[in-house]
Amino acid sequence: MKNFNDHIGLYTDHYEFTMAQGYYLDGRAETKACFDYFFRKNPFNSGYVIFAGLQDFLEMLNNFKFNDESISHLRRVGFNNDFLKHLKEFKFKGTIFAPNEGEVIFSNEPVRVEGNIIETQLIESMLLNVINFQSLIATKAARIRYSAEDRLVMDFGLRRAQGLAAIHASRAAIIGGLDSTSNVYSAYRYDLISSGTLAHSWIQSYGNELTAFRKYATSFPKNCVLLVDTYNTLKSGLPNAIKVAKEMEQKGEKLKAIRLDSGDLAYLSKEARKILNKANLRYVRIVASNQLNEHLIKSLIDQGAPIDAYGVGTSLITGHGDAALDGVYKLSVIDDNPTLKVSENMEKITLPGSKKIYRYFNGDGKFYADGIVLEAEKNIDTICHPIDIHKCAVVTGLGKEELVHKVVENGETIFKNKSVYDISQYAKQRLELLPEEHKRFENPHIYKVGISKKLLKLKDTLINGFEK
Amino acid sequence: MKNFNDHIGLYTDHYEFTMAQGYYLDGRAETKACFDYFFRKNPFNSGYVIFAGLQDFLEMLNNFKFNDESISHLRRVGFNNDFLKHLKEFKFKGTIFAPNEGEVIFSNEPVRVEGNIIETQLIESMLLNVINFQSLIATKAARIRYSAEDRLVMDFGLRRAQGLAAIHASRAAIIGGLDSTSNVYSAYRYDLISSGTLAHSWIQSYGNELTAFRKYATSFPKNCVLLVDTYNTLKSGLPNAIKVAKEMEQKGEKLKAIRLDSGDLAYLSKEARKILNKANLRYVRIVASNQLNEHLIKSLIDQGAPIDAYGVGTSLITGHGDAALDGVYKLSVIDDNPTLKVSENMEKITLPGSKKIYRYFNGDGKFYADGIVLEAEKNIDTICHPIDIHKCAVVTGLGKEELVHKVVENGETIFKNKSVYDISQYAKQRLELLPEEHKRFENPHIYKVGISKKLLKLKDTLINGFEK
Repeated sequence: MKNFNDHIGLYTDHYEFTMAQGYYLDGRAETKACFDYFFRKNPFNSGYVIFAGLQDFLEMLNNFKFNDESISHLRRVGFNNDFLKHLKEFKFKGTIFAPNEGEVIFSNEPVRVEGNIIETQLIESMLLNVINFQSLIATKAARIRYSAEDRLVMDFGLRRAQGLAAIHASRAAIIGGLDSTSNVYSAYRYDLISSGTLAHSWIQSYGNELTAFRKYATSFPKNCVLLVDTYNTLKSGLPNAIKVAKEMEQKGEKLKAIRLDSGDLAYLSKEARKILNKANLRYVRIVASNQLNEHLIKSLIDQGAPIDAYGVGTSLITGHGDAALDGVYKLSVIDDNPTLKVSENMEKITLPGSKKIYRYFNGDGKFYADGIVLEAEKNIDTICHPIDIHKCAVVTGLGKEELVHKVVENGETIFKNKSVYDISQYAKQRLELLPEEHKRFENPHIYKVGISKKLLKLKDTLINGFEK
Repeated sequence: MKNFNDHIGLYTDHYEFTMAQGYYLDGRAETKACFDYFFRKNPFNSGYVIFAGLQDFLEMLNNFKFNDESISHLRRVGFNNDFLKHLKEFKFKGTIFAPNEGEVIFSNEPVRVEGNIIETQLIESMLLNVINFQSLIATKAARIRYSAEDRLVMDFGLRRAQGLAAIHASRAAIIGGLDSTSNVYSAYRYDLISSGTLAHSWIQSYGNELTAFRKYATSFPKNCVLLVDTYNTLKSGLPNAIKVAKEMEQKGEKLKAIRLDSGDLAYLSKEARKILNKANLRYVRIVASNQLNEHLIKSLIDQGAPIDAYGVGTSLITGHGDAALDGVYKLSVIDDNPTLKVSENMEKITLPGSKKIYRYFNGDGKFYADGIVLEAEKNIDTICHPIDIHKCAVVTGLGKEELVHKVVENGETIFKNKSVYDISQYAKQRLELLPEEHKRFENPHIYKVGISKKLLKLKDTLINGFEK
């Protein structure tokens, strides 16, 4: 059975195995290493990223093993027998430090993976695959939530998702602030609210819009949302919906909403609102969908469109605008020695050593700046821009929190799973602490992420070492 | 166990269940329906699409069932008990007509799903999810293959894929013409060639590039590819690689290639080629990677860059430029009566009735045009543009083939699975039959897809029926 859950150890780039075998045959199986996961650029020109995917990653990490069939596959591909014997016993026994899922994070802030060089190397691809994508979608969803304010927003993306990406994407969408998903499997798997009513095919199948509406109202009197654009929204859909709403009233029932899925949503929602109000149907809500994203929702609200709920699909579920978060995984310590990856591009030089992150707070309790500092450091008075090193900020006396926490210790997850809606609530609270200027869509103010002077010095020393 | 394979029936939009329940409670469980799957717009401004994902879809369709746990979930969500009893026995027993996987297809060409209205409706989301995405990626891969000509091209996308999308994406990449993937799980699952050598972390972990190269050459003398840009490609990486190549020659071994992963790939590859040749290492190949796509590869080749193999990641695996194919699923027959979905946008009016597709050939055996015609039609002499109806083409006497074939009959897959490389070979042969002007990147010539006069007439009659 080629069941994914039985072969998660293979969910890895081929070169991770090649390197692991090389290390093993070179007698370095116990060599200690520390890798940093971080991204370089916020997606969507966003002022922040919502960290997501941690619980799925940790669950997959627990299943990251090699059964007989996986080992046979690797043998056929040509890997070494002694190495494969070692791999058969593989279980990740390292230690991982990460932010809370739902945390507001910024570029260059490391998730830290410590262990022997084989285990830390082998899990690279899976970590990147899972965390990059869920963080991308949670960030997109947070932007959509921001523009929709407190209106209901539903994920309709399953059909346009990148195949099985939908499974994680619908979870990440809720973390970022959406209310529900159309994806019933993800709803089942992650305990999410699923929602949905009817498609144009329902109307078509009855050949007559009024009949189709009546049939739907009979089947779902408590949750009746009528799609009014199959033929003509204002001339046919809306009058028929009003007829059915009145019939429902006779039975003591209430039409919940109408849905607009094409045409000019600003114009149609305003007209529909007027007509519904005139028919004494103020309680009937208006739902809109059709290629929406954070910018279009903002524009509809700016135009005063009286839309009560939004369905978002393709743009949300594929992270439109930036289909990938550019997360990387770089070696920062080897054999207890700090190391870095040099580059001719200053911005691509990595930060050496084992590091932690402090989040500093303003007097009003809002986020002020983050400082990436060496693990052993205690009293930090100043943090500086990692490249433009004369740009510094004094952080003495500011309130602070550690941003990354130990989530796996010697292979054991020491971490209490939270419900997806609890994670979503956490993301919401944290976003409230992020000053407004970092949340706007146009040229958001760049949040300060500095490094300590000791880290700066260590980086310089190591770079100079390479240049000799 | 929330194992995906056990709950594939839930991999569906919530509204499919709502509608299915509505139909069931309305006594329409046996009402016959036919749906068309098709897309409206080629992605990437491409002149064609490669149809992919069929075998995965059919495998998932065979598992599209509802076990006790799935049923319990739907009960908790509020679905009706009688309907759920019906669902517990569910198995798709309809009939499906589709092109061969790997076929060159165009917008509006329908995959046909026939059966009762419940089964044909319930599978909508999954069909769209799987076929839209694999067709998108196979098309992207075909474009990359086109620009790379006969050079080796490898999928490196796992880490930047949209999470679990990677599983299907690596398969679709091979269908579109790539040679191998870095994704070992997909290679295992679909019998693909996986490949990969080493990352920068390997070099960094030894603290010394020459040592790291020597260690790698010792571990992998037969497949030694050295990544030369960790410190400085021309000053350090290349001289060290040459030293190791010479040491390998002493042992009767050969350095296979060097890999460039940053900097100006055109300049660096030319310099590297010169230096390697001067060192009598003409046999050492040059591999390049780093944010490549079809346009960059074309540009490198146009500049005469002597690159022998390419690794492509993010752009391929996410279908950069168009993260989704806009496939839709529309009702075309209900209760044996043809039907269509009207729209104020002429291009969005669907084609009614049960249809088949003919592909017509030029005298030179190349594709000339496709005709979408009614199932019952025999002798077609003319096909016309579906909107601009005075644009017609005579097809009398041309060679022709039927493009869609029955792949599922009354629920049974009547279809012999092919290996992914065989599908890829088929796609390659078919692309060779597509005239060059449809394959270019800039304003590709639009391939003719017409409809028969009878279909045109049926469409008109139905539209007029609505307007009365």
